[in-house]
Amino acid sequence: MSADSVASAEQRLAELGIVLPPPPSPFGSYVEAVRSGNLVYFSGMVPVWGHEPIVRGRIGEDLTTEQGKLATEQAMLSGLAAAREFLGSLDHVTRIIKLTVYMATTQGFADHPKVADGATDLLLKLFGKEKLPVRIVLGVASMPLGMPVIVEFVLEVA
Amino acid sequence: MSADSVASAEQRLAELGIVLPPPPSPFGSYVEAVRSGNLVYFSGMVPVWGHEPIVRGRIGEDLTTEQGKLATEQAMLSGLAAAREFLGSLDHVTRIIKLTVYMATTQGFADHPKVADGATDLLLKLFGKEKLPVRIVLGVASMPLGMPVIVEFVLEVA
Amino acid sequence: MSADSVASAEQRLAELGIVLPPPPSPFGSYVEAVRSGNLVYFSGMVPVWGHEPIVRGRIGEDLTTEQGKLATEQAMLSGLAAAREFLGSLDHVTRIIKLTVYMATTQGFADHPKVADGATDLLLKLFGKEKLPVRIVLGVASMPLGMPVIVEFVLEVA
Repeated sequence: MSADSVASAEQRLAELGIVLPPPPSPFGSYVEAVRSGNLVYFSGMVPVWGHEPIVRGRIGEDLTTEQGKLATEQAMLSGLAAAREFLGSLDHVTRIIKLTVYMATTQGFADHPKVADGATDLLLKLFGKEKLPVRIVLGVASMPLGMPVIVEFVLEVA
Repeated sequence: MSADSVASAEQRLAELGIVLPPPPSPFGSYVEAVRSGNLVYFSGMVPVWGHEPIVRGRIGEDLTTEQGKLATEQAMLSGLAAAREFLGSLDHVTRIIKLTVYMATTQGFADHPKVADGATDLLLKLFGKEKLPVRIVLGVASMPLGMPVIVEFVLEVA
Repeated sequence: MSADSVASAEQRLAELGIVLPPPPSPFGSYVEAVRSGNLVYFSGMVPVWGHEPIVRGRIGEDLTTEQGKLATEQAMLSGLAAAREFLGSLDHVTRIIKLTVYMATTQGFADHPKVADGATDLLLKLFGKEKLPVRIVLGVASMPLGMPVIVEFVLEVA
């Protein structure tokens, strides 16, 4: 099936052979998803398996741009697992509204867009270009448990 | 009264003996709260009394995790003061939608969830677990007036 | 014409002799604006002309507070160009809901509000005080292409 916007995100996941990680669970007094009206807000998503980071370190120092991009993809996959758990199916998503990629970097790092592509290239493949979000990317000083990226996003549902 | 979700947040505040600080006022050309539809957005909340910081410094260096947690609780109390001023009563809140805790940290700091609990543990006590938000936590390089935390949040009202 | 809230933002732009830069275009798989209900979300806006930064550097080190404020105004102008392109006219804006100014700073920098005024003072002049947003300002470690500021905002339309 082609990647046109009317196809199913769940079908594309299966075709690409992507298995989502276990849905994330909170590290404190909060929840992973909240719906208000047609929007669903998600907690910051990180590259974990359960509560265990699968990658740690700072991009530009411990990790290359390419490793940062992979970590961002992992965080996004965790987010999709949270979305599927909350919505029942990714096919209920009518639009990804907004995506923010926070990354722990050295002060001199400047290739943030390439790192963030780890999330948005995946969304493009699964949801098609008509559902792409706005994007904000920036480099921060530190992250929970020493992880390199946090992905924050908001979905629209029917 | 037990902390079940139908009790009143204002009642719980009184029972816990918590007195909210004066509502914050802007440091520039902006407002403290904006409503659109059923959502109310708030400016970044900081640990101040009037325009004077009640705590300054970097977590992991000048401040311990526990001190950072207390600063986060103070910023959240300032946010609740802003919410009460805008809404008339905290009992108009039907849900806390989203909470972001930005904290100034050293590069090696990794205990962000414990610091952020200063805000969400308070929300849990006042609003009950059914109204808990999604949460994003991260460490940044610097903050207005050298303060250690900013709390950003969005509320849903009836 | 006075700056009261019923006048036209487009008229005020013309009166002030402000020419908006070319609307920004994405650096990856995302879009510059997404509408959901009455809200329009925008990608992070930076001080660019096309894809070329018009200013680089860290505030408090390479750039003064005043230079940071000018960079923030430039980023906001880029955002207004994106808004006009998406909406047809800035006069469709009923409210600026939320504005976040992320700035690359030294660790000791504390004058974030003055830098952020570069965006909100402009909004005040164009839209009047009744349409001012909530504001969040913070200092981060690094930015795409070494730029000093990112402005993120959400607009409400009729």
